[in-house]
Amino acid sequence: MAPRKEQQIFQATLELLAAKGYEGLTVEGVAERSGVNKTTIYRWWPSKAALLAAALVEADLLTMEPPDTGGLRGDLEALVEGVAALLTRPPASDVAVAALGAAVHHPELAEATRGFFADRFAREAAVFERARRRGELSAEADPMLIVDLLAGAVWLRAVFRALPLDDDFAARAVSAVLDGSLAR
Amino acid sequence: MAPRKEQQIFQATLELLAAKGYEGLTVEGVAERSGVNKTTIYRWWPSKAALLAAALVEADLLTMEPPDTGGLRGDLEALVEGVAALLTRPPASDVAVAALGAAVHHPELAEATRGFFADRFAREAAVFERARRRGELSAEADPMLIVDLLAGAVWLRAVFRALPLDDDFAARAVSAVLDGSLAR
Repeated sequence: MAPRKEQQIFQATLELLAAKGYEGLTVEGVAERSGVNKTTIYRWWPSKAALLAAALVEADLLTMEPPDTGGLRGDLEALVEGVAALLTRPPASDVAVAALGAAVHHPELAEATRGFFADRFAREAAVFERARRRGELSAEADPMLIVDLLAGAVWLRAVFRALPLDDDFAARAVSAVLDGSLAR
Repeated sequence: MAPRKEQQIFQATLELLAAKGYEGLTVEGVAERSGVNKTTIYRWWPSKAALLAAALVEADLLTMEPPDTGGLRGDLEALVEGVAALLTRPPASDVAVAALGAAVHHPELAEATRGFFADRFAREAAVFERARRRGELSAEADPMLIVDLLAGAVWLRAVFRALPLDDDFAARAVSAVLDGSLAR
């Protein structure tokens, strides 16, 4: 169940967060920006933290459909491209980076961030289930570890190092975790 | 060159940041906490952003000596353990997570974060130079990519997912980037 205009409410929540930070995010501001009554918003989400948690998981702006290219390598490269787009292409990147950065400072947002990553991983799991059925993955391969290596590398390179991602970044990152880096 | 009590100044800077966030960090507060005159601090660092940039790179609290275990696998596992300790063990973790989180929101801190990672990578490069001399790395292996995959995975798992790192996390993460994940 959801209120009418749910996506407008989520969109306004994420835009306000990106523009003003978590401190500047208010249910009043979301109400004004989305044209929805404040009491309606409070009826569905009891706090701005709850509203942001819902927006992170459910907003169309941050939606990700897990890829299905027919092979694990192609699927993982598409996943990396998706994370790279999320973290570097406005407007989604303004929102995603602001929300994830805010979560570091605001303990009441930790739950929202965990929810965001758990939801993503639940969708990504299909990629690994298909790869197992095709016999592509080693028995020891750990899907969450693979996702965290790849998505973490994008975050480090694009956000902390503030370096551009080369065109072949996704292919090279995926090759590292699939093929390894040892001399043969 | 450096003022006397440089480490006390850096320590006070990082403690204040962890306790009060970047907004609450002031040169006045650092002066009070470190017992150093405010004008002395300003003589060396013209702004709180400059002071924090110096503290991130030079404070003993965040110092990391690159490992030299005799082999690439052992060195990388030690690097992952070091990053894990930095991001999960107080007091260093309070400081590191606060500083890196603040950098996402404050463009004037982006330079400090880039400096921190560039300094770390300059130290870590020795691990890869020795591995190349020993013939351990494939020709295509990209040291910065390997570091970003490993450190990024620790950040994602420990900070964003807020999940504990298993005892074998370092060994499994390093195995993924060295041995790959494909069925053989």
